Amino acid sequence: MINFTCDYTRAGCQEVMNAIANASGQYPGYSEDEITARAKELVKQKCHCTNSDVHFLVGGTQTNCTFISSVLRPHEGVIAAATGHINVHETGAIESTGHKVLIIESEDGKINAATLDRYISDNFNDPNFEHIVKAGMVYISNSTEVGTIYSKHELEELHEVCKRQDIPLYMDGARLGYAMAATENDLTLHDLTLLTDAFYIGGTKQGALFGEALVINNPALKKDFRYIMKQRGALMAKGFLLGAQFEALMQGDTYERYSRHAIQQAQRIRETLKNKNIPLLIDSPTNQILPIFTNEQLNKLSANFIFDPWCHPDGNTTQVRIATDWATHEEDVTKLINELNNL
Amino acid sequence: MINFTCDYTRAGCQEVMNAIANASGQYPGYSEDEITARAKELVKQKCHCTNSDVHFLVGGTQTNCTFISSVLRPHEGVIAAATGHINVHETGAIESTGHKVLIIESEDGKINAATLDRYISDNFNDPNFEHIVKAGMVYISNSTEVGTIYSKHELEELHEVCKRQDIPLYMDGARLGYAMAATENDLTLHDLTLLTDAFYIGGTKQGALFGEALVINNPALKKDFRYIMKQRGALMAKGFLLGAQFEALMQGDTYERYSRHAIQQAQRIRETLKNKNIPLLIDSPTNQILPIFTNEQLNKLSANFIFDPWCHPDGNTTQVRIATDWATHEEDVTKLINELNNL
Amino acid sequence: MINFTCDYTRAGCQEVMNAIANASGQYPGYSEDEITARAKELVKQKCHCTNSDVHFLVGGTQTNCTFISSVLRPHEGVIAAATGHINVHETGAIESTGHKVLIIESEDGKINAATLDRYISDNFNDPNFEHIVKAGMVYISNSTEVGTIYSKHELEELHEVCKRQDIPLYMDGARLGYAMAATENDLTLHDLTLLTDAFYIGGTKQGALFGEALVINNPALKKDFRYIMKQRGALMAKGFLLGAQFEALMQGDTYERYSRHAIQQAQRIRETLKNKNIPLLIDSPTNQILPIFTNEQLNKLSANFIFDPWCHPDGNTTQVRIATDWATHEEDVTKLINELNNL
Amino acid sequence: MINFTCDYTRAGCQEVMNAIANASGQYPGYSEDEITARAKELVKQKCHCTNSDVHFLVGGTQTNCTFISSVLRPHEGVIAAATGHINVHETGAIESTGHKVLIIESEDGKINAATLDRYISDNFNDPNFEHIVKAGMVYISNSTEVGTIYSKHELEELHEVCKRQDIPLYMDGARLGYAMAATENDLTLHDLTLLTDAFYIGGTKQGALFGEALVINNPALKKDFRYIMKQRGALMAKGFLLGAQFEALMQGDTYERYSRHAIQQAQRIRETLKNKNIPLLIDSPTNQILPIFTNEQLNKLSANFIFDPWCHPDGNTTQVRIATDWATHEEDVTKLINELNNL
Repeated sequence: MINFTCDYTRAGCQEVMNAIANASGQYPGYSEDEITARAKELVKQKCHCTNSDVHFLVGGTQTNCTFISSVLRPHEGVIAAATGHINVHETGAIESTGHKVLIIESEDGKINAATLDRYISDNFNDPNFEHIVKAGMVYISNSTEVGTIYSKHELEELHEVCKRQDIPLYMDGARLGYAMAATENDLTLHDLTLLTDAFYIGGTKQGALFGEALVINNPALKKDFRYIMKQRGALMAKGFLLGAQFEALMQGDTYERYSRHAIQQAQRIRETLKNKNIPLLIDSPTNQILPIFTNEQLNKLSANFIFDPWCHPDGNTTQVRIATDWATHEEDVTKLINELNNL
Repeated sequence: MINFTCDYTRAGCQEVMNAIANASGQYPGYSEDEITARAKELVKQKCHCTNSDVHFLVGGTQTNCTFISSVLRPHEGVIAAATGHINVHETGAIESTGHKVLIIESEDGKINAATLDRYISDNFNDPNFEHIVKAGMVYISNSTEVGTIYSKHELEELHEVCKRQDIPLYMDGARLGYAMAATENDLTLHDLTLLTDAFYIGGTKQGALFGEALVINNPALKKDFRYIMKQRGALMAKGFLLGAQFEALMQGDTYERYSRHAIQQAQRIRETLKNKNIPLLIDSPTNQILPIFTNEQLNKLSANFIFDPWCHPDGNTTQVRIATDWATHEEDVTKLINELNNL
Repeated sequence: MINFTCDYTRAGCQEVMNAIANASGQYPGYSEDEITARAKELVKQKCHCTNSDVHFLVGGTQTNCTFISSVLRPHEGVIAAATGHINVHETGAIESTGHKVLIIESEDGKINAATLDRYISDNFNDPNFEHIVKAGMVYISNSTEVGTIYSKHELEELHEVCKRQDIPLYMDGARLGYAMAATENDLTLHDLTLLTDAFYIGGTKQGALFGEALVINNPALKKDFRYIMKQRGALMAKGFLLGAQFEALMQGDTYERYSRHAIQQAQRIRETLKNKNIPLLIDSPTNQILPIFTNEQLNKLSANFIFDPWCHPDGNTTQVRIATDWATHEEDVTKLINELNNL
Repeated sequence: MINFTCDYTRAGCQEVMNAIANASGQYPGYSEDEITARAKELVKQKCHCTNSDVHFLVGGTQTNCTFISSVLRPHEGVIAAATGHINVHETGAIESTGHKVLIIESEDGKINAATLDRYISDNFNDPNFEHIVKAGMVYISNSTEVGTIYSKHELEELHEVCKRQDIPLYMDGARLGYAMAATENDLTLHDLTLLTDAFYIGGTKQGALFGEALVINNPALKKDFRYIMKQRGALMAKGFLLGAQFEALMQGDTYERYSRHAIQQAQRIRETLKNKNIPLLIDSPTNQILPIFTNEQLNKLSANFIFDPWCHPDGNTTQVRIATDWATHEEDVTKLINELNNL
């Protein structure tokens, strides 16, 4: 059985496994070690940002909730697309820290700058209407939960609205490498340091065993962040394990190479589906492909493949997610393509 | 200038004012006094519920947030209509206690039993899908924020769904008297003790200076509630002030009489508007009337009357709220009717 | 039976009762009315502080928890004396907003500047030791929970330590009038605006039906406070009821006159106890007198008087609180003195 | 330089490293994989508890805060020794979830049953005194933060008090293996399943890269725990990494063997110190040895060894922690012993 359900089914890439195995000395606790220092330096070099702060956390939900709650005051909420991970798949982690997730409906998982501007004007134009939550942050994901990506122009416009409205912009990058490896992508990591107040470079789904690299660009949001990590259970005793993994991933083009691999395999599947006129929920350029199969088609495929079922658009069809990742075997994709062509 | 903006512009009714003036002795603190004991007894008699617990709190947001947070476990949220007060006008009080408000869209401010059932089945059918907030309570308002009311049949159906899904049902009764004084109403307070797990009888908008009477019917939800009141700043030092007011309001038909008065005045306005073919956002049978005036009409009326502007359905119109209450002067309504007829 | 258990057994003073009775118009909600505006102005005049912000809240626990949680970031705690109200008698209200109460042991209910300085140096000298809560505020009470008061010199020293350590100083003034009416007092309200970042002038225990006047002096702590009031259920719908009471209390020397009355009656009791060599837990100059009676003495007194029992220093004695207030009858005190003299 | 500062300086033991390397397949996410299922089974077998629930979390602070907050209602706090990790070294993680840590002073880091009983009777005897936090859990550590351990008799007594007072007992086992490897220990894991409501078996400090195995014995505390893990960021995407490590550690006597090693090395140091009459803060039978060196002694030792400095009992002395662990080199201990003997 070939498993395409998600991008966190396997341990870590070879470079990461070696890095862990090689971390055989004794290290100070809580990420105050030299490996971590080197890994942070590599992240900054890759981003061309000498002034950002870098922190390594264990997972995505933890990173989102720790960072967002470190920024918001009690009466502030965070704006997200309705499909945003913090809104739908984190069991109310943001609310558990006291904050409302403010929802913008979105077709493609992205927040459009004009929509955001209108949403803020419509809802938060009165600076003294104390009966509603105040917007204290904008959360976006890149790639989004439905596989779409932001163009540089879109992000510039969002950044401009956030700047004007004086609301920090934060990007969830659980799949940032896959977003940036997409053919359609025109953003660089350096762009992100200029156009967001903070973002994270995903590791867990991108070749690491676990770990995310949070990059805080806005100096006003840096203070005492490690305290809040510790409070949220996000300051690992053996932080050097995170450092070692990111040192491996950030070296040369390791991270990018694995990201590209996932995208190439996904795009082979995407093209096959399109040629076969199998409809797509969203025509995603990244590693998550979202076809709508007839139940008959899905039945046949299910003999050899597992996908992640999302919903039933109607009684006869099922929309699934096919996810590739850094470790997807080219020959498994070839098998899938053959079966798709034979449907 | 005649003010119809809302139903909390005036102090308290004469009976309440007298009760406060007459509370001239010395009383134990924190609602452990005899006046409060008598008031609780009167509430129970009026509801025909000897087994419910009654608590007096200061205001609506406080009552909602204190009760809801006393029931939910950390990973549970509360289902509400999108227009629900806890969702839109309490500055994230529920979220500040750690819980997500789960939204059901609604045209008329009510939650329909079939919609609720489907919503729960669609979203919470997997008892072990730990990635989303679990539904731990259903919140409804009666009357709703847009002036509509629940029929006995509707509430029975809701109660049945909640029972089957094992989720407590809580009714916000900030304007409960007005709901029950509506001609269309067929619910009694006794029905509420059978059909909800808890509800409150609003005082602040219904003749009291301030105060709400929370009635907890489900024995499983009673434990240690006063602790949580104290923690949320909702256990008044001079609790006898709440007791005195509710003793006054619950005596005879005082509460009902004032409620009927508000409804009668509101209905005079409602009929005039309908006769004049002025559109209504919702055809409310309670004390909140929601006409959509042309800006020209509103301009004329604004010379002598203040309403609460809600929104601009289009560039030429404004939807406002006209609220009556226990103290609305009949002659002020007559003046408004005359002006409406002359538009 | 004459009741000396506490200072919140009675409704409000005549001026307050009249003010409520006279508030017979229609007023905008949520403290945005003219009465409240006038009352705020009176508070500022009495404090000689044109730049402070004034807010009226319902009770002490609510005021403490709303203000403290509006200031602290998630990883910060509030330093208090072990006897501090927020530590012992608010059912964890501060913790319920996410913050630890950091304890300094104290014999007399006060925090000594040198002790505080040493406590901060001993515990918080490393700005990057992320494993412990950071000190984000100092909380003191005046008068304290055991009836003692701060001298101007003591407060100046505290203020100096807080300033140097960059930690805001907040004074709980539930019994501020009684503190300032003490013969030993040398502080003025104006001093408090210079020596604290915020404090409140207690109403509930000082002649009001309910209500506390929070005065925020530090501009950095003012922003969006009304949002947080609303979120914590502390923004009263009929805020004009608070305004009316404080307009009455702040006029002329009403507040001071009632405060002096309580102190005079308390001091008569204090002197009698001292003359009779009845030991005092603390020799309080304010309205709370803390004698240690033999159980035999207490038995006799209990025929006619009720006090608040605090503890049993040994098997033969009971320490009680005798509280006077703005409404204490002179003849009741005389009766108590006579009985004390006859013990 | 030989580093004895703490027991989390090194990656994982060989068995753990191999297990990670061997987890080379594809696995379902969020600990729903077979490796994890097998690891849970092994934990239960080792504990002889077929009815307990086992969950794997990433670290100690996370485990404490996730479990404790899943059990307490909003007005409840957790009793801990003043030295308890949750009180002093988790940056207020418990308070961040809304709960007070209630403190019992303790000389040896343990909670004595009689002291606990008296503490509960003194403070929580009135079931309706709503002004103080209610005790909702007792937290102990074994070994404690100062290296002491509970005897079976002590734990039986504690369990009996908790049972009688109806308060769950929870044991932090970050160093449980070291506690149970002590010569003085007479507890078994099976005892813990009978005498606690929940406990965890520490991995991070005991041979794992990271990870703790929480064992919930009380059926009433099991419900929906995975939801709360997810909400607190404690449900690892690649949960099989935790499963693999615990499968390795729980096999045969791997865990016990490594624990014994640490204890043997610690005891060699302990005996040397005692022979040299170097005072100990606490005479710990586990892997944390707490000598008080003169500053001159420490200066000499610091040429070749690093310890964790805790405090300065006086101007001439420094109390340090010397920690051994599963990986401590016998020859490094020999070197230390030689230098100690030469002091």
